[in-house]
Amino acid sequence: MNPSFERLELLSEHACFGGVQRFYKHMSSEVGLPMRFGLFLPAKAVAGEAVPLLTFLAGLTCTEETFAFKAGAQRLAAELGLALLTPDTSPRNTGVDSEDHHWDFGVGAGFYLDATQAPWSGHWCMESYLLKELLPEVIDAFGLDGKRLGLFGHSMGGHGALTLALRHPGHFQSVSAFAPICAPTQCPWGHKAFTGYLGQDETTWAEHDASALMGQQTSAPYPGGILIDQGLADKFLAEQLHPEVFEAACAKAGQPLTLRRHDGYDHGYYFISTFVDDHLRHHAQALSRNA
Amino acid sequence: MNPSFERLELLSEHACFGGVQRFYKHMSSEVGLPMRFGLFLPAKAVAGEAVPLLTFLAGLTCTEETFAFKAGAQRLAAELGLALLTPDTSPRNTGVDSEDHHWDFGVGAGFYLDATQAPWSGHWCMESYLLKELLPEVIDAFGLDGKRLGLFGHSMGGHGALTLALRHPGHFQSVSAFAPICAPTQCPWGHKAFTGYLGQDETTWAEHDASALMGQQTSAPYPGGILIDQGLADKFLAEQLHPEVFEAACAKAGQPLTLRRHDGYDHGYYFISTFVDDHLRHHAQALSRNA
Repeated sequence: MNPSFERLELLSEHACFGGVQRFYKHMSSEVGLPMRFGLFLPAKAVAGEAVPLLTFLAGLTCTEETFAFKAGAQRLAAELGLALLTPDTSPRNTGVDSEDHHWDFGVGAGFYLDATQAPWSGHWCMESYLLKELLPEVIDAFGLDGKRLGLFGHSMGGHGALTLALRHPGHFQSVSAFAPICAPTQCPWGHKAFTGYLGQDETTWAEHDASALMGQQTSAPYPGGILIDQGLADKFLAEQLHPEVFEAACAKAGQPLTLRRHDGYDHGYYFISTFVDDHLRHHAQALSRNA
Repeated sequence: MNPSFERLELLSEHACFGGVQRFYKHMSSEVGLPMRFGLFLPAKAVAGEAVPLLTFLAGLTCTEETFAFKAGAQRLAAELGLALLTPDTSPRNTGVDSEDHHWDFGVGAGFYLDATQAPWSGHWCMESYLLKELLPEVIDAFGLDGKRLGLFGHSMGGHGALTLALRHPGHFQSVSAFAPICAPTQCPWGHKAFTGYLGQDETTWAEHDASALMGQQTSAPYPGGILIDQGLADKFLAEQLHPEVFEAACAKAGQPLTLRRHDGYDHGYYFISTFVDDHLRHHAQALSRNA
């Protein structure tokens, strides 16, 4: 057993579609606190094969369990031979008094960045946690294929998926999102989070805005295409999400984008479950090119 | 709009796989209190076609939301054109002081029967509620096909599915269960529930025991077969579930039974989601014979 595996505490495991859905806790040196995550391993991975890994970043108020419980992704992931990693959405029990005063800031709302402002800068470093610690540790511990990594997410986690994929070129081979916050510098959720975590100087914000980051590209960072699904009955669409801003940035950069707008669908997991198979196939196709 | 529909209060609705997942509240005259239920309608039903209805009875502590959230059944139900009804598992807020003192008796634990003992006999009448009120009302309000009804469930709800299907011959055309309580007169959950709801006279208990009911049959009540899935890593299997007792009763009655025992699977919704497609196909096949 390798050292990474020994650092993981198994909280529960459940046979699922011939593979296994597990939940773990580990002490994170980046965050400085224990963190939890979910991991689905298809049968091939349980048997030792180095399968690709898709990381799903969840939205505001969610946990490492939400996608595993509600999205129904394990069925096709088992069939396609994909591992699914579901991190938590923030540190918890940090000792910061106001950590749970807001549903859209603090606990459950890490925004997948490293905070620079007190009191958040102590533990709120989800970007470093994911890139420097969780993914390497999981890839190592479970013998997954670190050269075939996909990233996707929902809402705040869609923002996370798009920004981390653009901030770390070459790290991920495929990216997609459900109803992502596409231009956080231009919406209330983003203003609140960036002011709190990054401070009043708005020049630092653009580094964590998917549309601004795409606007800086001189060629397509994901030539195989980015997939985004957006429900048109999503109550957050008009004020918070701004897919049209990201769409324009992609067009300018020459980035192929499949942005699908769906009549009648809302912001929740019934929407995600309806289209999650298409996302898994999008990633599987991109990652098969790297096999 | 018909009178049944007017009595239903829509709590929420979510587009889902081309159909719609809804949650309703209605005043139940049988229970004497408001009750909640979930209903998935495939696109065909939304368009007015009289599709078959599958009712799923959930287990201890669950609600009308559990199966809708966690089982991932809507995808194939949409494809097969099946409506899915998910009742709650008991009355709630009944005014009975001790209603929530136990996780396996009272609230969340209606056991799909009509209680005869005070204080439960006032509101705890899930069998009458389902058969005389909820199903007719839903079939009428949504124009479903009342001659093509399937019944399935999990654990306590598996007990409910098997017993109601046997107690009401001809009402349902197909039945299946996940990890059902197969012989409640012989297990602690059943003893506790039947003592509380039905009283000390054990002669009344057999009428609500699936294995005892099957033991009384002189020919197969479901000649198309009953499907049961059971995980072998289910921590309740040895003490509470007794599928072998039901299996023996089916053999004696000549009732075809497909009882599948699955290595490694536990009692939860990862187990259910893994095998739910097989149950939907089992029902669809039986109900297509009635089309």
